[in-house]
Amino acid sequence: LIEVFREIGHRAEMAVVTGGLGPTEDDLCSEAAAEAAGVSLEEDPAALMSVEAFFSTRHRPLTAANKKQAFLPTGAKCLPNPVGTAPGFQMMIGKCQFFFLPGVPFEMKKMLADQVLPVAFERRGPSKMFSPDRTLSVFGLTESVTNERLHGLTDRFPDIKLGMRAKFPEIQVKLYARGPEKPVLEETLKQATLWVTERLGNHVFSSSGETLSEVIGVFLRRNSETLALAESCTGGLMAHLLTSVAGSSDYFLLSAVTYANRAKMDVLGVDPGIIREHGAVHVQTAREMAACVRRIAEATYGLATSGVAGPGGGTPEKPVGTICIGLATETDSEGFQFHFSYGDRGMNKQMFAAKAFDLLRRRLGGIDPT
Amino acid sequence: LIEVFREIGHRAEMAVVTGGLGPTEDDLCSEAAAEAAGVSLEEDPAALMSVEAFFSTRHRPLTAANKKQAFLPTGAKCLPNPVGTAPGFQMMIGKCQFFFLPGVPFEMKKMLADQVLPVAFERRGPSKMFSPDRTLSVFGLTESVTNERLHGLTDRFPDIKLGMRAKFPEIQVKLYARGPEKPVLEETLKQATLWVTERLGNHVFSSSGETLSEVIGVFLRRNSETLALAESCTGGLMAHLLTSVAGSSDYFLLSAVTYANRAKMDVLGVDPGIIREHGAVHVQTAREMAACVRRIAEATYGLATSGVAGPGGGTPEKPVGTICIGLATETDSEGFQFHFSYGDRGMNKQMFAAKAFDLLRRRLGGIDPT
Repeated sequence: LIEVFREIGHRAEMAVVTGGLGPTEDDLCSEAAAEAAGVSLEEDPAALMSVEAFFSTRHRPLTAANKKQAFLPTGAKCLPNPVGTAPGFQMMIGKCQFFFLPGVPFEMKKMLADQVLPVAFERRGPSKMFSPDRTLSVFGLTESVTNERLHGLTDRFPDIKLGMRAKFPEIQVKLYARGPEKPVLEETLKQATLWVTERLGNHVFSSSGETLSEVIGVFLRRNSETLALAESCTGGLMAHLLTSVAGSSDYFLLSAVTYANRAKMDVLGVDPGIIREHGAVHVQTAREMAACVRRIAEATYGLATSGVAGPGGGTPEKPVGTICIGLATETDSEGFQFHFSYGDRGMNKQMFAAKAFDLLRRRLGGIDPT
Repeated sequence: LIEVFREIGHRAEMAVVTGGLGPTEDDLCSEAAAEAAGVSLEEDPAALMSVEAFFSTRHRPLTAANKKQAFLPTGAKCLPNPVGTAPGFQMMIGKCQFFFLPGVPFEMKKMLADQVLPVAFERRGPSKMFSPDRTLSVFGLTESVTNERLHGLTDRFPDIKLGMRAKFPEIQVKLYARGPEKPVLEETLKQATLWVTERLGNHVFSSSGETLSEVIGVFLRRNSETLALAESCTGGLMAHLLTSVAGSSDYFLLSAVTYANRAKMDVLGVDPGIIREHGAVHVQTAREMAACVRRIAEATYGLATSGVAGPGGGTPEKPVGTICIGLATETDSEGFQFHFSYGDRGMNKQMFAAKAFDLLRRRLGGIDPT
C-alpha cells in the first residue's frame, strides 16, 4: 500500500482510495497513508466527533477499536461519515490530493457525491465544457449484434462517443457528448438516440436507465392496472425485482411462488389434468398458472413462469435452460417457450425473469411480443 | 492504459488485467497492450479458432466485430475462452508477465482458475508452505463488536492472521494460517475456530462459507422437513434466496408473496379481524400468516414477514425499518418484532429476510431465538 500510494503521488493529481478504514486489525489504510507521506498518526477531533455521533445516535457503545478510527495522518483533513462508523480524510501524498473513503458501497457513494466530487469540480475550475450523456437499455440482443447494428454511429455523429456495457441480462448502450454548447450537444444526443433506437428497434426498453421492472411499473401505474405473478422456476426473483421499486404496492398484488406441483394445484387451482398431461414445464401449464393467479388476485394481468433452472431436473425434451411463460389478461391468455444455454442456475433465473418481464413490457407497450 | 501497463511492467513480476477485450469500439486493451510493449496487432490462429468455436456451437453468425477479437499483440500467447466470445492472452510488457482476461465475471473466474493460477503456482516453484484458511459467517453482531470480542486472538494464536469482511447483512471472519507443516496448521486453525466460536456464540451460523439459506436447507433436508413462506415486506426475496440453492425444491414448497392486504386474506386466509384490529404490520398478523401458509402448503414450518421497507409507509408506531416475523410449527406459532435503521429499501429487505432466516435457523438448531 505504501509503495502504491507513493507511486500514485508521483504520477497523478487526484486519487480516491476506498476501503481499509474500518475498526479491524487488517484495516491499514490510515497507517499506510501516514507512512507514505512521512508523517505520523494522531487523534483528530473532527474524526472522533464523527465516530462518537454515529454511535450515540444508535445508542451503541463506542469500542476501543472504533476509537482507533479517529486517528488520522498528521495534517489530514477529516471527511465526516454521516452514515457509517469510519470517517474518511483527505491529504497530500507527493503532488497528489488523496481522498480516503470507507469501502462500504453506500457510505462511499454518499461521501464521494457530497465531499469529493464538489472539490474535484472546483479544482477543475469554471469549465466551458458540458458532458451530457444518454443510456439506452437493451434486452434480447447480444453485445456483438448490438455493436454490429450500431456500426457507423461515430461516422454519422463524430461528436458522440459510444460505450457499451453488458449488465446481465441486459445491455446498456451509452452515448457521450462533450463540447462547449449545451443546446447543440443535447440536440446531437437526441438525434443519435433516435438513430440508435431505429437500429435496435423494440429491443430498447428504456432511454433513462430504468430497469425492466421499473418500466413495467410505469406502464401499470399510468393505466391504473395491476399485476399478479405465479412463479415456479424464477422462485420469487420476479417478485423481488418488482418489489425493489418503491411504491410497487400500488400495482403489484401477489406472487404465488408455487415451487411444488401440489402448491400449483392447491394454491393456484391449476387443473391437475393439465399437469398430468403436459408436466409442470409446459406452455399450457404456464398459461393456466397465469390465468389462475390473475383470477385469484383480481389483477389486470397474470404472468407465470415454469422452467428448468438447473443444474438438475433437465430431460431430453425439456433440458436445463427451458422456460415456459404464461401471460393472461381478462380476455385471453398466451403461452411461450424459450431455451437459454447459460448452464448456471443463477443466470438462468435472471434471464427467465427478464424474458417474462420483457414479454409483459411489450404487451403493455402494444408492440410485438418477440 | 498504455502508461499504466508500462508502469506496472517496470514494477511487478505478474499482473492480471480484466476487461476491455470485447468486440465493441471502446474495448481497447489489446491495442494498448501492443502499444505498451512496442509491437503491433496481428490475427492469431488460436484466438480465431476460439472465437469461431464459440459462435459455431451456438449457431450464431460470426460478425466482423467479433473477428476483431482474434487480433492479438505480436508474440502474445492466446488463452482460449471456453465460455464466452473474447479470448484472453498472455505477454511480457517490460519485465512483467501480463495476463489479459475478459471482464465478464464468470468467464474471468473460470480462465483465472484454469489458465492463470496454475502458471502462477508453477512460477512460484515447489513450495514447502501451506496456506489453509477458515471462514466463519456471523449474523447479528456489528463488525466492531465482532472485532472487539476477538481481541487477543493474535496473541493467543500468533500463527493465525485475522481478516474481517462485511458482506451485508452478514460478517465473515476469516482465519488464515501459513507454514510448512499442514497437520500443525490444521490443528491450530481448529483451535482458533473453537476460540472464535466460543466468543461469538450462536451468532456464528457457518464455518464453511454457507449462506443462511443454505444452512436452513441442510437442516430441513437432514430432518426430511419442509418450509412454506408468507412474504409481505420481503417481497419474494426470501423465496429467491432459498431457491438460489440447487435442490431446494426438496424442502421448499411455497411462498405466498401477499403484497396486498386483500391477498393476505384471500390467498392465505388470514382472519380479516386480525388485520382490522392490528394492521398488516404486527406480530399477531405475522403469526397468523405463518400459521396459514404452513397449513395451506402442508409444510413442517411456516415463516412470515410483514414490515415497512420504506421509503414510504412508515408511521410513528411502525416507522420505516420495522419488521414483524411469524414462525409456525404444527404445535405452536410465535411472533417477533424488530427495528432496523438503514434507511434504504434494498438494505431493509436484505436485513428483514436474513433476520427471519436467522430465527428459523436457531429454531432448527434448537438454540435460543435471539
